[in-house]
Amino acid sequence: MILTVTLNTALDITYRVPALRPHASHRVTDVTERPGGKGLNVARVLAALGHEVTVTGFVGGATGRVVRERLTQVADALVPVRGTTRRTVAVVDAGTGDTTQLNEPGPVITPTEWSAFQRAYSELVADADAVALCGSLPPGVPVGAYAGLVRTARAVGIPVLLDTSGEPLRRGVAARPDIIKPNAAELAELTGSHEPLRATQGARRRGAQSVVASLGAEGVIAATPEGRWRATPPARMHGNPTGAGDSVSAGLLSALVEGLTWPDRLARAVALSAATVLAPVAGEFDRAAYEDLLGRVTVTGEATAPEGQSLT
Amino acid sequence: MILTVTLNTALDITYRVPALRPHASHRVTDVTERPGGKGLNVARVLAALGHEVTVTGFVGGATGRVVRERLTQVADALVPVRGTTRRTVAVVDAGTGDTTQLNEPGPVITPTEWSAFQRAYSELVADADAVALCGSLPPGVPVGAYAGLVRTARAVGIPVLLDTSGEPLRRGVAARPDIIKPNAAELAELTGSHEPLRATQGARRRGAQSVVASLGAEGVIAATPEGRWRATPPARMHGNPTGAGDSVSAGLLSALVEGLTWPDRLARAVALSAATVLAPVAGEFDRAAYEDLLGRVTVTGEATAPEGQSLT
Repeated sequence: MILTVTLNTALDITYRVPALRPHASHRVTDVTERPGGKGLNVARVLAALGHEVTVTGFVGGATGRVVRERLTQVADALVPVRGTTRRTVAVVDAGTGDTTQLNEPGPVITPTEWSAFQRAYSELVADADAVALCGSLPPGVPVGAYAGLVRTARAVGIPVLLDTSGEPLRRGVAARPDIIKPNAAELAELTGSHEPLRATQGARRRGAQSVVASLGAEGVIAATPEGRWRATPPARMHGNPTGAGDSVSAGLLSALVEGLTWPDRLARAVALSAATVLAPVAGEFDRAAYEDLLGRVTVTGEATAPEGQSLT
Repeated sequence: MILTVTLNTALDITYRVPALRPHASHRVTDVTERPGGKGLNVARVLAALGHEVTVTGFVGGATGRVVRERLTQVADALVPVRGTTRRTVAVVDAGTGDTTQLNEPGPVITPTEWSAFQRAYSELVADADAVALCGSLPPGVPVGAYAGLVRTARAVGIPVLLDTSGEPLRRGVAARPDIIKPNAAELAELTGSHEPLRATQGARRRGAQSVVASLGAEGVIAATPEGRWRATPPARMHGNPTGAGDSVSAGLLSALVEGLTWPDRLARAVALSAATVLAPVAGEFDRAAYEDLLGRVTVTGEATAPEGQSLT
């Protein structure tokens, strides 16, 4: 079983409008709703890949009820809270295809609720093959939360992937997670370097054992104890990038659990990510495209490359 | 008991954002939610005025549960449906104060659900002192729906106010409601005349017994079997006009049930409407402002004025 943690779960709502005009009234022509938050997105992709998945994190209120009702193909180990799970509203302009995003704040988590979560997490981790810790922290959760959750997993020898940003990432990295998966902006914020190769090395020095930096349409670069690689999709994909980063996490974690090598893990992650951009529904992946792309991702680099050596 | 009917109930959500920029991502700083749809708004004001109120209409799904949970001070006689009650999202730009509105479509009502509503309505009307029929029709409800509901009330001698627009208003007026309360645009659409005095007379010829046209900051004009009047607030009010029209309906209906004369009904309607514009929360009214304004509304006109005579 793979455990994914989403402390700030969401109900993701998508509105389609003919054209978004500020200060006007709009008739929404199409409404879709689904459970959201990075960890739930990762879980959805893992389940679609055939993995047994358990999801945990916080859920509450009327929105939380809808999130739970709509979870499918994953085991629900979410921890109830008194506050209300947030909504995110993506307003898609049918004319331009552009999206305007409105994100509610999460519920305030009380110290008692945070303690209850930590107890539940400790029990779940013991049965897990790997753990993904994903997304932002809701108000009330200590900024060092992920550092503690990383340590709990490492203490029982379970590999842990961390995908967050800002101070929670900085604190979490110091607890030595197995993998972090920042995008270019998150990596630059963590390390102070805007040069991705240098920054991945910097993130390793800060504590991350492996760093997989997602560079959008250019694929990923990885710095790991076993070597350094770059994985690139065969072409630039056109579509909706929502959830592409979560597909990278799902690809890495599923491949790790299956015992694949780093080059094969990266190829899967990049193929899944590209197939997510191509899918008509945000955050889903196009399975046929994934299977086609898997053999066409280019992975370059070398095993056990000495620190500081160029990839090219 | 006053009965208000809201066939297309809603959960009204208000988001405050620092500045709305299309195609950007926004952190919502403040979220408020409350039951919406014109009839529920009218009911809230009637209850605040001390009247016993029952609300009916359709409600369904997760959003419908929230609407019911949040109804206070009114008796809930809403009819459950299989579809989901719509949300409306008002995005308030904290910089400019401007509002961008996103309205979901309502649930599709089945013929069985519509029949169930009509049975429930017939029973409720028998116990009512007055009825308000308010707002748009959800998909599936026949366009002549309000005409039938007006006839049901009139058959048992219960006064009925109709506040809707377009074809449902046109059909409803033909069934001879006691009062209609169009705004200038709805009145022009109904009668073809953009001249409010002439248009109110035109609406009476089409079947409405009394027509109270709301002219925004200028107050209302009324054409009734007992005479014609204009009621004007003492000054232009600055604030949020959301719900001001529903306060006019609540003012008219409460005053009718209390046996007040037309000039007193109109003074109450205009004072309540102005006090709604002044209230900090959209759709609430400022009670102190209402009590202050009530004696300062100017009502001009005359009883039993012959058709066609000028008000001025």
